[in-house]
Amino acid sequence: MPGQSLLLAHRLEGKNVLLVGGGEVALTRLKKLIPTGSRVTLIAPEVHPAVWEKYCSFIGPDEANSRVDFTDKDWRAKNGIYRVIKEGFKFDYLDLYRKDNDSGWSLILTCIPDKPLSEEIYHESKRRFGSQQTVNVADNPPLCDVYFGAELNFGAGDDSRMQLMISSNGMGPRFVALVRDEIRRMLEGIDFESSLDNLGALRQAVRGIASNDSRDTKYRMNWMKRCTETFGIKNCENLNVEELTKLFEKMYNDDQNMQFPREEEMFEKYLQ
Amino acid sequence: MPGQSLLLAHRLEGKNVLLVGGGEVALTRLKKLIPTGSRVTLIAPEVHPAVWEKYCSFIGPDEANSRVDFTDKDWRAKNGIYRVIKEGFKFDYLDLYRKDNDSGWSLILTCIPDKPLSEEIYHESKRRFGSQQTVNVADNPPLCDVYFGAELNFGAGDDSRMQLMISSNGMGPRFVALVRDEIRRMLEGIDFESSLDNLGALRQAVRGIASNDSRDTKYRMNWMKRCTETFGIKNCENLNVEELTKLFEKMYNDDQNMQFPREEEMFEKYLQ
Repeated sequence: MPGQSLLLAHRLEGKNVLLVGGGEVALTRLKKLIPTGSRVTLIAPEVHPAVWEKYCSFIGPDEANSRVDFTDKDWRAKNGIYRVIKEGFKFDYLDLYRKDNDSGWSLILTCIPDKPLSEEIYHESKRRFGSQQTVNVADNPPLCDVYFGAELNFGAGDDSRMQLMISSNGMGPRFVALVRDEIRRMLEGIDFESSLDNLGALRQAVRGIASNDSRDTKYRMNWMKRCTETFGIKNCENLNVEELTKLFEKMYNDDQNMQFPREEEMFEKYLQ
Repeated sequence: MPGQSLLLAHRLEGKNVLLVGGGEVALTRLKKLIPTGSRVTLIAPEVHPAVWEKYCSFIGPDEANSRVDFTDKDWRAKNGIYRVIKEGFKFDYLDLYRKDNDSGWSLILTCIPDKPLSEEIYHESKRRFGSQQTVNVADNPPLCDVYFGAELNFGAGDDSRMQLMISSNGMGPRFVALVRDEIRRMLEGIDFESSLDNLGALRQAVRGIASNDSRDTKYRMNWMKRCTETFGIKNCENLNVEELTKLFEKMYNDDQNMQFPREEEMFEKYLQ
């Protein structure tokens, strides 16, 4: 039985990711990678039509058969792949962005049917860049430093700032996707983006009032926590930030007390 | 506004993690790290009593003040820290497990109040081990390759194989914890462990019947998908694996058809 994993959110804006393979699995990887703003280099002799259409629009149909190495300087604006090398994998490609001991890759992902080759890519990556190089070999759990899971983006699709992931640590990929779908249904209708906007604005305002010493910081954080909990996840989209800021100022100046108004009054006066 | 993250489940069994700091934040890190089976080295001049009590039980009260470097050979069985170095951070410690270009650290995490020092640890880690070294500096988002989020373990606590994470990409840590709590309430009562056991057993049985070629594999996977979806997340804990295996065998031998019995019959005959 596998142990637990540590679930982490990787910040990949502008960082290089190596994707070896261009098939259906590569497509699922790209759907998750591109919204992070990562600079993806894809290496594959054949590229799935959907990958081609969605992420390689910078390559003209004429060019596609005359060269193998395509770079898009405008990849970020186009939400596409940064570089496509349309041929079989060569180990030299591991060093495309290497500088001395710096591999240049935040992640190395392989999703090719050739099992021995993908295993060799794993081991060679570790040999060259150390065990600290994060690698995922699709369909080969022992060679995965990280697993993918079922993801859910709350709110406005690719721009959503709130993300959820469920992993069964390889035990039931289809089942976790169902659980994910169920969670989506249950939380439907909540405006997570407005909620985060309101809470962000309130946190900012409150930070401007309190001083920066550790006692004030603690009070401020506790106050925000109590406030968020009082309203619950369904009401934060309607916070009256202005009135709540005044409430904080009053309580802060009144000896930093934690005597919030009764719940009834909170809901009546501080939601809009 | 921050872009999206790539959410990944890190497999850390037996891998070294460096944790610089021994306070309240370190405690929250340890709660997530220890169940992964990672080999944690903690470096801090002062250690929070709860960290000491929960994860350092191998250090006797007499020893605690006579030495600084403690290793527990039996750390895995005790669900504890592997090594505690009870003094201020020194940069030599980055090389504790280094072998040439291999840093020896899967993750480097700092959670100390000294901001300049933690920034220097970040930069020195990248200098020595390359940009591929994953680092998290608590409370300093620009120096985080990865963010932590609100986690939820379904089922039997630390042994749970199903895990969920929610991240707001730093925008509303308290709000995502509330969403996590809401999801926990909504899914209460579902036996996720039995569900995964049943689906695992069924997948195993079905794999033994179908051949390994790509057409059979595809049929087998589609069949499992349809089956899981038909029963939904609330019924997989009651699957009759034996009867479902027979059903698969029949359908597989009958020209690999996808004509499942009517839903009514499925629920009556194939749940127990």
